[in-house]
Amino acid sequence: MDFSELIRKKRDGLPLSRNEIVEFIGGYTRGEIPDYQCSALLMAIFFRGLNREETADLTEAMMRSGETLDLADFPQPKVDKHSTGGVGDKTSLVIAPVAAAGGLMVPMISGRGLGHTGGTLDKLESIPGFNTHLSLAEFRRVLGACGMGLIGQTDDLAPADRKLYSLRDVTATVESIPLISASIMSKKLAEGIDGLVLDVKTGSGAFMKKLEDSRELARRMVEIGMACGKRVTAVITEMSQPLGNAVGNALEVIECIETLKGRGPRDLAEISCELTAQMFLVGGTEKSMEAARAKYTSLIASGKPLEIFTRVIAEQGGDPKVVEDYSRLPSAKHEDSIVAPDDGWVAGLEAFTVGRASMVLGAGRERLDSVIDPGVGLVFEKKVGDPVSAGERICLVYANDTARLERTRDMLRGAIAISPEPAVAPALIQETL
Amino acid sequence: MDFSELIRKKRDGLPLSRNEIVEFIGGYTRGEIPDYQCSALLMAIFFRGLNREETADLTEAMMRSGETLDLADFPQPKVDKHSTGGVGDKTSLVIAPVAAAGGLMVPMISGRGLGHTGGTLDKLESIPGFNTHLSLAEFRRVLGACGMGLIGQTDDLAPADRKLYSLRDVTATVESIPLISASIMSKKLAEGIDGLVLDVKTGSGAFMKKLEDSRELARRMVEIGMACGKRVTAVITEMSQPLGNAVGNALEVIECIETLKGRGPRDLAEISCELTAQMFLVGGTEKSMEAARAKYTSLIASGKPLEIFTRVIAEQGGDPKVVEDYSRLPSAKHEDSIVAPDDGWVAGLEAFTVGRASMVLGAGRERLDSVIDPGVGLVFEKKVGDPVSAGERICLVYANDTARLERTRDMLRGAIAISPEPAVAPALIQETL
Repeated sequence: MDFSELIRKKRDGLPLSRNEIVEFIGGYTRGEIPDYQCSALLMAIFFRGLNREETADLTEAMMRSGETLDLADFPQPKVDKHSTGGVGDKTSLVIAPVAAAGGLMVPMISGRGLGHTGGTLDKLESIPGFNTHLSLAEFRRVLGACGMGLIGQTDDLAPADRKLYSLRDVTATVESIPLISASIMSKKLAEGIDGLVLDVKTGSGAFMKKLEDSRELARRMVEIGMACGKRVTAVITEMSQPLGNAVGNALEVIECIETLKGRGPRDLAEISCELTAQMFLVGGTEKSMEAARAKYTSLIASGKPLEIFTRVIAEQGGDPKVVEDYSRLPSAKHEDSIVAPDDGWVAGLEAFTVGRASMVLGAGRERLDSVIDPGVGLVFEKKVGDPVSAGERICLVYANDTARLERTRDMLRGAIAISPEPAVAPALIQETL
Repeated sequence: MDFSELIRKKRDGLPLSRNEIVEFIGGYTRGEIPDYQCSALLMAIFFRGLNREETADLTEAMMRSGETLDLADFPQPKVDKHSTGGVGDKTSLVIAPVAAAGGLMVPMISGRGLGHTGGTLDKLESIPGFNTHLSLAEFRRVLGACGMGLIGQTDDLAPADRKLYSLRDVTATVESIPLISASIMSKKLAEGIDGLVLDVKTGSGAFMKKLEDSRELARRMVEIGMACGKRVTAVITEMSQPLGNAVGNALEVIECIETLKGRGPRDLAEISCELTAQMFLVGGTEKSMEAARAKYTSLIASGKPLEIFTRVIAEQGGDPKVVEDYSRLPSAKHEDSIVAPDDGWVAGLEAFTVGRASMVLGAGRERLDSVIDPGVGLVFEKKVGDPVSAGERICLVYANDTARLERTRDMLRGAIAISPEPAVAPALIQETL
């Protein structure tokens, strides 16, 4: 194959055949196609897009570029949830235990935070001893024991995606909806799942700021799932203010445990319930959303999900006592308050800036090699729509470095909008497809 | 500079600053910017284009990436001619000697043929001993002695262009008019010229098949010239049938010598006259096209251009006796005829296929590393518009390999169209700008 002809074809707007896509991904993974040809093709894809068939072929080729998990010998329906990422987005730690308690197997392979967004692995690693670097064999063991497990990408899983993503990152070819869709779906399909619920965030704290882009991404991923014979539902959810009250790794773990105890913030509980209910539908264990939501509620009340989460912590090497004793989690030396400048209603907690502010504190990564400070973060005591009086606390800031604290305070002041008129938070669940 | 931000800027349709372009070309030439980022940027440029200012900045940065020729100590106006290439396009060997005889200095740095098109260097190298690999110092000496010289690209001249071109060639980013314009103009401006006449070919045998593309390329190059303070004229000329009668290296050298003797084919003489006359205008040695064309005619009649060409051959190590004795040039073992299948008029000698046929014979290169056979080629005895009888010869084929001859015959039969109605050749000079 003359690879420059393949680039030319895409450049000129012609669709690539399944065979060409297989040769592209295989050749690139094996190092036969050089980076400079690959990046030219990626840029041509950025401009010309990929049709439904090409996107499915690309996803499958990327999935098949490495090992895939075969969970067929477990009796449960295998269903995962994936979020496109946001600020304070911690639902995985709630959803996976509830879904496992409800009879699903949840083989959750997650990512790390970057920029303003947090990552599930970083949150988990704030639990002393928690190991997210399991081999696929160890992961199977945890899945067998708990019905769920939470690990990071392994080198064997969809290596084409990792190699492509590194190249996209330095060639301004990340922001392509078909490439993003194929990247996410190739990793998820390699988990050996039967079904998937996608939480596609929209708003300032999301990767996709505009609803139309979020919708397009959701549509693309659902199409890929269909083409690969998987049941996939996408829920578009609100990310213009942080989800829940806590932003920061150990703080978010505490909030998740509280939610598993039935004491979590309303918005986090609502989204967790909705997404878990969709997983029960996708997995075929419930037939209606009403029944599925009721199941979520009764499972939380039963305490079983918290037991499962506690067991997962222990199985993955972490300290299970954190569940009852939050002082075993990392904390911060300094505490500070951001207060309302005026009487009124909270009209905005601009999520992107809040995410950047928590990153500046050390809760997130500026670069891939930045070191996370697990104890720092923010806890909001007011959310959009809440009335406030001048001087009343909106947010508690936990910091280990006073210079970083100062920068964070300035950023947060810019992120908080107080209105003299009552404000209403936008609907959490925007659309389901 | 974060180079991926620069790629993103162009990708999103924003113009690059002069400084960004200088850093791009400098960084890439020095090897600081990797090929994979460069190719992504080139593909973004393919889609987004470059505005007039960016194209001029790119050209200048590429020109300054290496040595430039300084010919200021010679008294003559320095004017070159550049053709975008075609089939049987041999005008350089006529034009340069006439222009030099007319008082211009012509520092012609030429290229090789590829695919269906021939190259000036390949034609010159069919002259036994002719050396096109002069250093810039040797080139200056020949220019001083003859008022003209004919060499190939040196490693020192516009190295950025050579490096970029190699990358474009394997990443489907060749066909970008601003990149083509900058590539051509950077090399020409490095020759230290005051003015330039561009022969932009249009039609099936040209690089640009469509008149609108040829016009756009011509416009771009004229704009670059203006931005760099040079006098540049572009002439768009016809390339739907071969120029002149001969296609093939030694055969074309003979045709040029015949033209310098005043006995060349009408179309070759007409284009050579027009382009040389434009050079006299650009160089300021003539004020009107009428006077400039008359000068061309009187110079040919004087025999001085042939003397200059003979001297250039000698100065560049070639055998000057070829000018009087064509048997000193390479020839071919086999001769064959292509005849008219019917009575009628020649309605087409499709230039692209004729060029490919001569390449198959060995007169051109399939790939950059193909070896040229200097003696083989075609001589047309009929051109578009000529009446023919069934069985009358249209073309003589000179070959060294009977299998290649057979393939060539088949291709030529497909390239020749005979019409029962009189046909008219399109105007040679289509537009001047």
